[in-house]
Amino acid sequence: MLSWVDGQPATQLSILDRGLAYGDGLFETIAVQRGQPRLLARHLARLQQGAQRLSLSLDLQAVQAELLAFCAELGEGVAKLIVTRGEGLRGYAPPQPSRACRVLLGNPAPAYPAVHAEQGVRLFPCATRLAEQPLLAGLKHLNRLEQVLARAEWQDPVYAEGLMCDSSGRVIEGVYSNLFLCRDGQLLTADLSRCGVTGVMRAEVLAQAEALGIAVHIRDISRAELLAADEVFLCNSLYGIWPVRELQGHDWPVGPLTRKLQAIIRSLLDS
Amino acid sequence: MLSWVDGQPATQLSILDRGLAYGDGLFETIAVQRGQPRLLARHLARLQQGAQRLSLSLDLQAVQAELLAFCAELGEGVAKLIVTRGEGLRGYAPPQPSRACRVLLGNPAPAYPAVHAEQGVRLFPCATRLAEQPLLAGLKHLNRLEQVLARAEWQDPVYAEGLMCDSSGRVIEGVYSNLFLCRDGQLLTADLSRCGVTGVMRAEVLAQAEALGIAVHIRDISRAELLAADEVFLCNSLYGIWPVRELQGHDWPVGPLTRKLQAIIRSLLDS
Repeated sequence: MLSWVDGQPATQLSILDRGLAYGDGLFETIAVQRGQPRLLARHLARLQQGAQRLSLSLDLQAVQAELLAFCAELGEGVAKLIVTRGEGLRGYAPPQPSRACRVLLGNPAPAYPAVHAEQGVRLFPCATRLAEQPLLAGLKHLNRLEQVLARAEWQDPVYAEGLMCDSSGRVIEGVYSNLFLCRDGQLLTADLSRCGVTGVMRAEVLAQAEALGIAVHIRDISRAELLAADEVFLCNSLYGIWPVRELQGHDWPVGPLTRKLQAIIRSLLDS
Repeated sequence: MLSWVDGQPATQLSILDRGLAYGDGLFETIAVQRGQPRLLARHLARLQQGAQRLSLSLDLQAVQAELLAFCAELGEGVAKLIVTRGEGLRGYAPPQPSRACRVLLGNPAPAYPAVHAEQGVRLFPCATRLAEQPLLAGLKHLNRLEQVLARAEWQDPVYAEGLMCDSSGRVIEGVYSNLFLCRDGQLLTADLSRCGVTGVMRAEVLAQAEALGIAVHIRDISRAELLAADEVFLCNSLYGIWPVRELQGHDWPVGPLTRKLQAIIRSLLDS
């Protein structure tokens, strides 16, 4: 496995790092093809926003240069970038100044069954709810126990993803994907100002929809609205778009809007 | 600094560890005197409960033996024990089977000003709210970004601690302490079934109060109740009990119930 810490080949990190102590950091999971990170600008923009909201000082240009060099060496697969607040003294107070630590991990692309993209997936209904924390909502931070608990709810591979709702029962996202509904030729995706992760592929889908002149609504979504959707799909930065075909006995067709966006995203990831 | 990983002297941890990736683990901060961990049974009991709730398989006897050996070598100070779910493949799904990783860090005891215990402390009113997540409430897990954000709200050392409320405005705890109210000779502390950390010193105070025949109520606490309290105090496993004397211009006296419990806890920590 290819792995770097602060730009140097390494497999270990200081046990004083605040990423371990408190999950005090952010991460990005980036598709890499022919030595190039895909959706690079969106990954870096999200990382920058996260760093600003956590007051984590970060040299974004250095991160970008390091990421590009890492992806060039990786060639094909997935690059995971972790940025932490670095080593800390004992206690929650962020060190002043702090020095961010950068971890890069390279892996082969996950072997998702082709049937997921072709025929759509079934969703497991996760009982684990997302807590509402506006200060952390949207960020891809390292506090991910809710996702760990949710993903541990099912082992049956018949479910490719799990549906997560917030503590008020609103439909939010998948465990590792964002969720879109299609209704009357328009798109609907959850408001992520209380919880959830603003995925880079979600941002890309929103941009592509705008370019196509498709109306998009970002707001709260009820379970009833989900069930009443014409089409439902998931997206993330690695697999692009998967149609959703079933949740708890409710079926959706794999429809034309999903297929149109899926093709666009596929060509973008493969380009 | 004395530090062990899985029982061996070490200063680094695998970058594949799920403690770093997801905050997928637990920790304990333990006072050590004359080579002995204080409140050991309570720390181990909380660790065990946390491991059960996170389905983290843990050999508690091995952890205890390792901790005792570590404290004997440390002599005096603070032992921080981190237990993670160990290394993982990519993805949130917990590896089956997983092998927990144990990290032990030794540090000198923090140099708290004696005036905190003697005259009481001022509380900073944290704007950061604790999200309500019953699945994680009470646990001392590694997802601590809320505490990082709360502790970053103040730098002025005039505030020894910060008060944290939940998203509904209920009074919960300090950033690194639990909070007790005294009213009419009785004790009141927050219900921690939605958020918060069930501190080992909180458990000890509850046990001591019971032994003294003092009535204790564990339930939701409003800000108005906090302000109306006769006495208020904080507790944690390192400093024992600190009286609280001020929050946003409201003053409390340092009263007899606080002093009585403080003396008992002090003798317990020093014994």
